Formats: sequence, structure tokens, C-alpha cells
Amino acid sequence: MTTSNTGNAGGVDPAVRAELARLRESIDNIDAAVVHMLAERFKCTQQVGHLKAAHQLPPADPSREAQQIARLRSLAENARLDPAFAEKLLNFIIAEVIRHHESIADSAGGAGGADKL
Amino acid sequence: MTTSNTGNAGGVDPAVRAELARLRESIDNIDAAVVHMLAERFKCTQQVGHLKAAHQLPPADPSREAQQIARLRSLAENARLDPAFAEKLLNFIIAEVIRHHESIADSAGGAGGADKL
Repeated sequence: MTTSNTGNAGGVDPAVRAELARLRESIDNIDAAVVHMLAERFKCTQQVGHLKAAHQLPPADPSREAQQIARLRSLAENARLDPAFAEKLLNFIIAEVIRHHESIADSAGGAGGADKL
Repeated sequence: MTTSNTGNAGGVDPAVRAELARLRESIDNIDAAVVHMLAERFKCTQQVGHLKAAHQLPPADPSREAQQIARLRSLAENARLDPAFAEKLLNFIIAEVIRHHESIADSAGGAGGADKL
């Protein structure tokens, strides 16, 4: 009656369900590890942000970002992760970091303002 | 003459430059760890994708995703990472996983097709 959009999830073989649960436990463990790695990464980038704001360095650094992207694409290839995905992910994280840096520079710069370009 | 958009990067105190290099080395180490964790995560989700395709389970699973998001937000809060960022990141990764699952289901389903909604 109302089974059309749920596949046959209700009638799935218990062995399949157990295998799915096993894989999801690994995914959850990895996600917890990634969250904690990223928390540590943002601690580092917050320090970079304060350093840059204190010394009037621009929040964005295109040559550093180009190096990071090239390195991550190469690491991703070796790990058999799609390099395009790794690059998109790094850009996603860097965009968040730049927002943090701008807000640090704003609060540190006052009326004088830091050079953010 | 052409220094306007580069801040004063050229004239930065060597101690500041060394501190920046130290932080960037840590960031690079963390990024390498994250890339390898995500490579392992995609190995798990590829297996999930094959399992789902073989048993006609839908690629997306909204209740599982809601649980993952709630859990990651809570982990992020404990790790002092912005929970909104953690949620956006998970959605970004899940979108990639669903694309993989759809392509697995497409290649496994043939003319009959799997239920992907």
C-alpha cells in the first residue's frame, strides 16, 4: 500500500542488514575522527588568522592555496580518492577559514582595518 | 608601486614567518590525515552502495542521514568545532556519496532500474 518509495527495506535479509550496520559503524568512526581532525585544523587556522591580523597579512593567500590543492590532489590520487572531490572539499574548508580570518581581522583592525585582499 | 594588494608579506618578521610555517606544517599533516580517512570512508560507502544496489535499497536514507547529522553536531560541539560547519560538511560528503550510489545503481540496475527515491 505505502511501500512504493521505501524500496524493500522492511523485507531485507538479516545478513544484509547486519553487513550494512557493520559498514555504517565504520563510517561513523571515520566521521568522528574527521570531526576531531578538523577541530584541530581550525585551532591551527585560528592561530594563523591571529598572526596574520596582528601583522597585517592578507587573510587569503592564493599561492599557498594553489600549493595545498596540488598536494592534496596528489595525495588523493595515491589514496584512490577522487582528486576533484578532494579539491572541492579543500575549497569548501578554505572558504570557511577565510571567513574566520576576515572576522578576526575585522575585530583586530578596528577603524584602521587590515588589508584583506 | 605594486605592493597594494599583497599586505606587507615581504617585510614580515622572520619569527612570524617561522611560526606561520610551523602552523602550516600541522595543517598539511591534518589535511593528509583527512584525505586518507575520507578515502577509507568512500571505500565503506562504495560497499554500502553495492549492497544497496544488489538488494534494491534506495541510495538515500533520510532517517540515517538525520541521525548522522545529529551525532556529528554533538561531536563537533564537544570538540569546539562549529556544529553548523560540521553539518554542512557532512551534507557535502553525503551528496557525493549519493552520486556514487546512483551511479552504482544505474550500472547494476540495467533496464529494470533500482528504486532510487
